[in-house]
Amino acid sequence: MSSPLALQAIGVIRTARTHWEKTPVQSSLNPDEPGQLHVYEPFVPGLAGIEDFDNLWLLCWLGDGNWSPTEPPPMTQVPFLLQREQRSVGIFATRGPRRVNPIGLSLVRLDTVEGGVITFRGVDMVDGTLVIDIKPYVTRFDRPGDEPRCGWFDGVDLPAAATPDDLAH
Amino acid sequence: MSSPLALQAIGVIRTARTHWEKTPVQSSLNPDEPGQLHVYEPFVPGLAGIEDFDNLWLLCWLGDGNWSPTEPPPMTQVPFLLQREQRSVGIFATRGPRRVNPIGLSLVRLDTVEGGVITFRGVDMVDGTLVIDIKPYVTRFDRPGDEPRCGWFDGVDLPAAATPDDLAH
Repeated sequence: MSSPLALQAIGVIRTARTHWEKTPVQSSLNPDEPGQLHVYEPFVPGLAGIEDFDNLWLLCWLGDGNWSPTEPPPMTQVPFLLQREQRSVGIFATRGPRRVNPIGLSLVRLDTVEGGVITFRGVDMVDGTLVIDIKPYVTRFDRPGDEPRCGWFDGVDLPAAATPDDLAH
Repeated sequence: MSSPLALQAIGVIRTARTHWEKTPVQSSLNPDEPGQLHVYEPFVPGLAGIEDFDNLWLLCWLGDGNWSPTEPPPMTQVPFLLQREQRSVGIFATRGPRRVNPIGLSLVRLDTVEGGVITFRGVDMVDGTLVIDIKPYVTRFDRPGDEPRCGWFDGVDLPAAATPDDLAH
């Protein structure tokens, strides 16, 4: 814990998904499936007021046993959504999990908050995923004023509930 | 670097702002001011394709000399935008910088990418802020389908370019 850029988990995700290959790649593509975030006890008072928001950003830690802070992943990769075309793009032009810092950004819909348990909809996380931050979705901050260009995403199908396995074939 | 949740910076922000007290609190409240992100050399190939997006999420490291991973901040705080009311809310219902993990999420507008230098608009960072991730804004992933409730933000003024100093008086 001597690094100035060290994190701690604030909670853990509980979902019905146990394999990332069979987990939808984005919350918005799987908006109805429920999951839970169990916030660790010391941080539960930090949830005060969160029940008045319809949507939350969950920042999740996507590092696994293969990830090392000193060995960055390839800087260009074929995203799950471009598997069929086998087209590579820079990792900072993707939302994939293999990043220099393996942080995922998921927009979920808040259902209930009971004690330290947040029930939400929009599962794109495997069971056991660690959460490092929760932020409220604020329309004034988080919505561009126009219809922005979204790069290669504008040219691909985004099939409902697509998983990496679905997209590989 | 032995912690499994250790990060490394991928670049550094250059802006005309040198004091956080005099820096706008959100990008969207200061949409025209330009800034630059200088991406460190090993990560520059990861920018391939990013020029086709109008908006980017910048995940910034907001920890300073006062921050320690083992001493969390108070779980309820008075946000800058509620200074006049002196109203406290849980930190996970705010977008403020004093978080368990001091990560900021800023939506900026991409102007140009030249080599490893991204010029953007929407400054809410002081000069020298470290960046830990860049993600493309993808409307299909990042925009709720309706007009969501945004908690206490729905009841406060969000003055253009407001800084903590402005909001304290």
